[in-house]
Amino acid sequence: MPVNYTPSTPDQLHAVGGVRLGVAEAEVRKKNRKDLTLIELAPGSVAAGVFTQNRFCAAPVTLCRSHLATGKDIRALVINTGIANAGTGEPGMQAAQATCDAVAKLLGIEARQVLPFSTGVILELLPTDRVIAGLPKAQANLKAAGWHDAAQGIMTTDTVHKAASRQLEIAGKTVTITGISKGAGMIRPNMATMLGFLATDAGIPAALLEKLVKEAADQSFNCITVDGDTSTNDSFIMIATGAAGVSVDEKHAQWNELKSTLIGVARELAQAIVRDGEGATKFISIQVGGGKNTEECRMVGYAIGHSPLVKTAFFASDPNLGRIQAAIGYAGISDLDVSKTRIWLSSNGEEALVSEHGGRAAGYEEATGSRIMKAAEITIRIDLGRGNAETTIWSCDFSYDYVKINADYRS
Amino acid sequence: MPVNYTPSTPDQLHAVGGVRLGVAEAEVRKKNRKDLTLIELAPGSVAAGVFTQNRFCAAPVTLCRSHLATGKDIRALVINTGIANAGTGEPGMQAAQATCDAVAKLLGIEARQVLPFSTGVILELLPTDRVIAGLPKAQANLKAAGWHDAAQGIMTTDTVHKAASRQLEIAGKTVTITGISKGAGMIRPNMATMLGFLATDAGIPAALLEKLVKEAADQSFNCITVDGDTSTNDSFIMIATGAAGVSVDEKHAQWNELKSTLIGVARELAQAIVRDGEGATKFISIQVGGGKNTEECRMVGYAIGHSPLVKTAFFASDPNLGRIQAAIGYAGISDLDVSKTRIWLSSNGEEALVSEHGGRAAGYEEATGSRIMKAAEITIRIDLGRGNAETTIWSCDFSYDYVKINADYRS
Repeated sequence: MPVNYTPSTPDQLHAVGGVRLGVAEAEVRKKNRKDLTLIELAPGSVAAGVFTQNRFCAAPVTLCRSHLATGKDIRALVINTGIANAGTGEPGMQAAQATCDAVAKLLGIEARQVLPFSTGVILELLPTDRVIAGLPKAQANLKAAGWHDAAQGIMTTDTVHKAASRQLEIAGKTVTITGISKGAGMIRPNMATMLGFLATDAGIPAALLEKLVKEAADQSFNCITVDGDTSTNDSFIMIATGAAGVSVDEKHAQWNELKSTLIGVARELAQAIVRDGEGATKFISIQVGGGKNTEECRMVGYAIGHSPLVKTAFFASDPNLGRIQAAIGYAGISDLDVSKTRIWLSSNGEEALVSEHGGRAAGYEEATGSRIMKAAEITIRIDLGRGNAETTIWSCDFSYDYVKINADYRS
Repeated sequence: MPVNYTPSTPDQLHAVGGVRLGVAEAEVRKKNRKDLTLIELAPGSVAAGVFTQNRFCAAPVTLCRSHLATGKDIRALVINTGIANAGTGEPGMQAAQATCDAVAKLLGIEARQVLPFSTGVILELLPTDRVIAGLPKAQANLKAAGWHDAAQGIMTTDTVHKAASRQLEIAGKTVTITGISKGAGMIRPNMATMLGFLATDAGIPAALLEKLVKEAADQSFNCITVDGDTSTNDSFIMIATGAAGVSVDEKHAQWNELKSTLIGVARELAQAIVRDGEGATKFISIQVGGGKNTEECRMVGYAIGHSPLVKTAFFASDPNLGRIQAAIGYAGISDLDVSKTRIWLSSNGEEALVSEHGGRAAGYEEATGSRIMKAAEITIRIDLGRGNAETTIWSCDFSYDYVKINADYRS
């Protein structure tokens, strides 16, 4: 069960002009599973993406990078679950290429206009024949109202589908932004996330979209962790179809409004992954401020967010908060003066100063810490006391079920 | 239950000339627990140590560093469990100083000749009065045959005590080396370990001992991980009393023999910590070779050794070995050519090539991987294919019991 997350119903997800989505059962790894998703984009759409920094990146990630380098006029996305097509060497590249070729043939476009994505088990080869055989079925299901199906079609160990949708008025036109994401484990995105797709029917120049996708990733998917394992297949794609009949660039009066809405949707999708983190029972926001720069705030946030000791203490609502100090201390700031750091804990509108001057805060009582930690949404706030930079990392707790899910994942 | 580790019996631990050890129940945090250990060193002994790099280092660690900077003529060590005296600010420093003062008064030495150590819960203040009240009882128990008691006296979540002892002949004299260690969780030593104490009755010049303790730590405690959490209290101390009547320096014909024996004992103590890792059911050696330098081999070894996904797969004996590739890929070698990497898995004399050319090895079968992973001692061998550097990291698997132990630790 995800933490404070109610998955959207089909009618809550607005169609995005220029985008149609279709799902099929292709038996990639198991029978009777919607495991193949096709997304078709109207001519004139532009796309941009960011991808995992894992050196063992999947074959489809390599192909996506190459296709986006060739041109931004992407016309289709194809996504399979079950097998990640990562750690598959040259045969994996051939499988990803063959999938793109088949989609191109089916839709009458060029293979370089297809972006392929895979997610699932690493080190196993993609059964290209079954994927290709499933494509016409996915094509037959293509529809503008297909976002809900697609959100379900890209799930693996996710317990719920993840989608978000918003609309705003720009120059008298209704602009829609809808996105989906997946992921629950192997989550510590490095420049991107497991899988995230976000589309708007506003027109956005390709170069600007490329800047925006990086900025949005940095403020959403690049701020989350479940287990600290950076996936081989992380991909986050932003699409602008222009079908709403309005184009927006940095000079447009409503650019900031559109931009913050797009980033807001990306953040909602990213947080949904943490809320559905494998075995998660609590959603933890780690706000790190007072840093010399954002990078050191991120280091501290991730040290806390990854610490198995901190995560198990939160699972137990045990205010064993010295574990947070320990994580701050080993985060990698070699000249940190711990006597200037402060730590607060809060939930449900109650905030307690836990630590200051390198030790326990005078007024802090364990009963308070314990009460705050019992909530499902908890914030850890840290002041490093050495500057003005700040950032927030979202994480979850670590329960028996994380071990259960990951010891049993393939069986 | 530790993995393939039989704790030593009292008669297996040789006394070290010049060293006496005594243990007492001081009720530091709970009643009826041997939680205070005093180690007395004869005049003429020298000591050297390495300590945690955690910025939130414990008050006793700060005091140890200061005392060892003042002089190497250490005469006593005092160790309490229950409370780590870390994250305790200025009051913590006063508590550690008061403990040293009390030991000095009791033994008729200077406070700067006392090294204090604490281990247990962070963020709680040491009850100095109860520690000081316990000291005369520990003193009354001082004996040369006290190593077994001391090994038990420094345990926290350890399920077994950890000690090792060896003897060798140098210039017709019997030289003894005996050591103890503790630790099971919050284990990812950075320049040192949880707690490790190693003494020899050979004489070793102070400057040389200081070099040796660093080298020994780098080849033992700095090669292990349980959960990736670097403790606030890591300390590793090496003592040379000279009581055997033989002094050895780098020019001595048997220096290399003594040195490798000392490092061997340190390694045995370090591995014992992993074998008794919280919830551990398997002991995993990660041999990384073919690196450009040792540091990148360490990065890869630790990425694998820390990955919750790899650790849970080993717990389940599930050959989901793409998770190892993923960890290699995100370990931080930005120019790694994965097509040159190779991964082997072995246990009980059987070795299988799992991955090569960036993909699954041609002859590899899952049944083989599964069979190898069922053993309690498993080796992962990696060739990075880019140089001649190599290193080995020791780790363990990740089970339900890790969560159980750490969610319940204080209750």
